[in-house]
Amino acid sequence: MNPILSTHKVRAFESISHFDISTDVLVCGYGGAGAAAALEAVTLGAKVTILERASAGGGSTALSSCEMYLGGSGGTALQKELGLEDSTENMLAYLREALGPYGDEDKMRCYAQGAAGHFDWVESLGVPYKRAAFLERTVVPLSDESLLFTGNEKAHPFNTIAKPVPRGHVPSKVGDEGGKIFMDAIMQRIAGAGAEVINDCRAIALLVDKNNRVCGVIAKRDNREIAIRATRGVVLATGGFVMNDTMTRQYMPELLEYCVPYGNTFDMGDGIQLGQAVGGQTINMEQAFMSFPLYPPAKLTYGILLNKHGQRYINEDAYLARLAHYSCQQAEQKFYLLVQEEDFEASHYLQRAAIVATGDSIAEVASEAPFPAGILEQTVSYFNQHASNKQDPLFHKTAEWLKPLNKPPFALLEYSASEMTAVIMPGTKGPLIFTLGGLKTLTTGEVVNLDNEIISGLYAAGRATAGLPRTAKGYASGMSVGDATFFGRLAGRSAAKHLPI
Amino acid sequence: MNPILSTHKVRAFESISHFDISTDVLVCGYGGAGAAAALEAVTLGAKVTILERASAGGGSTALSSCEMYLGGSGGTALQKELGLEDSTENMLAYLREALGPYGDEDKMRCYAQGAAGHFDWVESLGVPYKRAAFLERTVVPLSDESLLFTGNEKAHPFNTIAKPVPRGHVPSKVGDEGGKIFMDAIMQRIAGAGAEVINDCRAIALLVDKNNRVCGVIAKRDNREIAIRATRGVVLATGGFVMNDTMTRQYMPELLEYCVPYGNTFDMGDGIQLGQAVGGQTINMEQAFMSFPLYPPAKLTYGILLNKHGQRYINEDAYLARLAHYSCQQAEQKFYLLVQEEDFEASHYLQRAAIVATGDSIAEVASEAPFPAGILEQTVSYFNQHASNKQDPLFHKTAEWLKPLNKPPFALLEYSASEMTAVIMPGTKGPLIFTLGGLKTLTTGEVVNLDNEIISGLYAAGRATAGLPRTAKGYASGMSVGDATFFGRLAGRSAAKHLPI
Repeated sequence: MNPILSTHKVRAFESISHFDISTDVLVCGYGGAGAAAALEAVTLGAKVTILERASAGGGSTALSSCEMYLGGSGGTALQKELGLEDSTENMLAYLREALGPYGDEDKMRCYAQGAAGHFDWVESLGVPYKRAAFLERTVVPLSDESLLFTGNEKAHPFNTIAKPVPRGHVPSKVGDEGGKIFMDAIMQRIAGAGAEVINDCRAIALLVDKNNRVCGVIAKRDNREIAIRATRGVVLATGGFVMNDTMTRQYMPELLEYCVPYGNTFDMGDGIQLGQAVGGQTINMEQAFMSFPLYPPAKLTYGILLNKHGQRYINEDAYLARLAHYSCQQAEQKFYLLVQEEDFEASHYLQRAAIVATGDSIAEVASEAPFPAGILEQTVSYFNQHASNKQDPLFHKTAEWLKPLNKPPFALLEYSASEMTAVIMPGTKGPLIFTLGGLKTLTTGEVVNLDNEIISGLYAAGRATAGLPRTAKGYASGMSVGDATFFGRLAGRSAAKHLPI
Repeated sequence: MNPILSTHKVRAFESISHFDISTDVLVCGYGGAGAAAALEAVTLGAKVTILERASAGGGSTALSSCEMYLGGSGGTALQKELGLEDSTENMLAYLREALGPYGDEDKMRCYAQGAAGHFDWVESLGVPYKRAAFLERTVVPLSDESLLFTGNEKAHPFNTIAKPVPRGHVPSKVGDEGGKIFMDAIMQRIAGAGAEVINDCRAIALLVDKNNRVCGVIAKRDNREIAIRATRGVVLATGGFVMNDTMTRQYMPELLEYCVPYGNTFDMGDGIQLGQAVGGQTINMEQAFMSFPLYPPAKLTYGILLNKHGQRYINEDAYLARLAHYSCQQAEQKFYLLVQEEDFEASHYLQRAAIVATGDSIAEVASEAPFPAGILEQTVSYFNQHASNKQDPLFHKTAEWLKPLNKPPFALLEYSASEMTAVIMPGTKGPLIFTLGGLKTLTTGEVVNLDNEIISGLYAAGRATAGLPRTAKGYASGMSVGDATFFGRLAGRSAAKHLPI
């Protein structure tokens, strides 16, 4: 044992004389990843104990729409019944473009090959999926359809690399309650299978034996420490670190200029820190899922996004995380949307995008706009000239969203980081929703150390790991819950099959 | 001891029966940081042993121009004798703007306060500095002046935040031999002071005792392992990891799309890995110093840089690392310079920047250029209209570099990542010169663990640490050698004063 690592988060297994609890597989964190791991493990006959820091299970998955990004294998049952085909190679081509150099080829392939089967598993839990698709541009349907486009599938350059197929699978219900529906269903199964759940309890240290195997944890419960032995393994499914101020400042200082954390209160990086404390390797720590909530309403997509220099900088029909990524890349954190009245409608997510200029002509808007003189007229004239031919030679916005801005009146909305206020949050910047870096794991959920050697007895899944999604640039709604539940199951299986101490 | 951390890089001090060498302060790495640490420690009376992986000392500092970014305290001796004033607050204001949210306030303040004194120390080693300044736009003077502007001091927005003062201090010699001059001088002092230097030898594991104090290393010498005891401390000054393919792919996958490593062969991250193996915290691992070698010749700065959309994206008078940063931010890795013949001269650093279009009018250039039709004419007409009034409302290039592009013939040069080939390197992309992330240290050089607790007996400096410079965006030539030698001295002092075992 080497307390140099951490004087608090690692303890010698042999130093513990009494164990308050003894189990086979200990799962830390009862969100989507932890629940999936627990259900697989208990189904394989392992004794499973789950620790949850909050007063009830659910985690970030329960707060989400529970969209899962699924496809491949000819199509999921839902895609197929809607007459949609989706090959594993087509899905893989999309994932590779989305993740770029950050992608983990093993995880992408494993996920693309198993995603359709994962849908069957989720549905088998009793989660309702209506055989209906909502194909308009949105983030989550407020009606009861279960299939939608949730990423950049139809946008450039993705539409030149892979055939666009809707892969967002969301539980059917009017409104946005997918996360609750899924978590209620899976937690009911887990309770029925006899796994023990301990709420208001969190692991604060890992127990490591003389053979360097993780054998349990020290947890905090009712303000006292308890020792828990895990004969087969410990699964860290505690979420990311978006709400840990120290960690976000350390790993993503620049993103904090653009965003404010808006995540699950308990995304404090507990499990990542525990894993690091036993030598677990962390990667991708500077990346996060953030959002530029331009839409809904979809029709704002007809407008053009401008940086503070009055230049366009992205195809406006991209997914909102990609809009956020490219916005962050601009020299200064001020962004504008020029829109004509017929396409204007208040944002569904933002309290306000300040109207900073209006006019019956572009020149009139320009006279009130905070751009250098003359630039707005140039930008709009170039856009209009080509949009009237349904073309966008600069950024390739698809024809579906192209029309010249020539019907006054016009308005210029400002979406500055310092002004962007989502209805759903009290922040003053764009939302930083969850982090995409964490423990480095194999597709089995095994955590590796600095030498890429497996740490015996330690598993992780969900946002406590660097999973399938790696960047906002290519993120699609459903990649995180899809990853967390898919690889959570694999981690639970691996732990359950691990030879007991 | 917890081999989970690393089965190779940490060993129990108590398990070593025989020590081949016993010393007070062991310095790993004999570049600028290691030399500075060694000289301070030996000067304080400590027995010092230096291990160097190469066959001779020098490291990356010897390969550099040995520019040091120095000022403050009213001015260095060199600045003052040239009639230049530089206050600590002015230098600090510049550093804060340069480093932004990545900056370490303690290190910035400590450095700004001590930089002028550091110059006196360097000069006291016998390093020649001519009381003459070379104030033209360049990276390193090929004549013998010793003071120059090496960053963005005169460029927007820095020129609105701090008074521009030249802070690049370079040893005087016709040509570019500063690094050799400095390293020869300091290594001569170190030899004279009786420190032991062992070349062709590198540390492969740290020795940690039962009290978790670092007490020495296991090193590889003549193909066998030797044990070295260090009673006061071990200083890791082994450089960054730019030449470690596994580490660069892991920590900066996206930069590798733009750059190819072009650094010191031995920048393999040895010390960073050793520090991590005993729980040392690493930060800023995704950042690196890269370069867009647009100049010299300076007069190319009169041209305008364009992205693949034919839009300008930065003030062309910025420092070459900042040019590289903003170029990387563009949607695709193709960059162009439109220049008129009177300002054209072959690049000093690039084998070629392909001429992709020429013409006696902008329209003629546009007809051959790879831009969407009409965009180049718009961009140039807007630039010219304002440049003729010495203004650049979009990016605020300074008047010094503003003139309308209206004297044909014109040429469009392509600097694509895939084509950019520096004379000084065989690569096919822009050069990735050294990394800016590493062990987290205090200004004393003490390495901290995951809980920000000091690891007893372990010190680090130079690019093995996250030092003063943190990003290419605000980098200035001289920040790295300045940081390595300045904080190397502090690390050497701390180790020498550490109570012996």
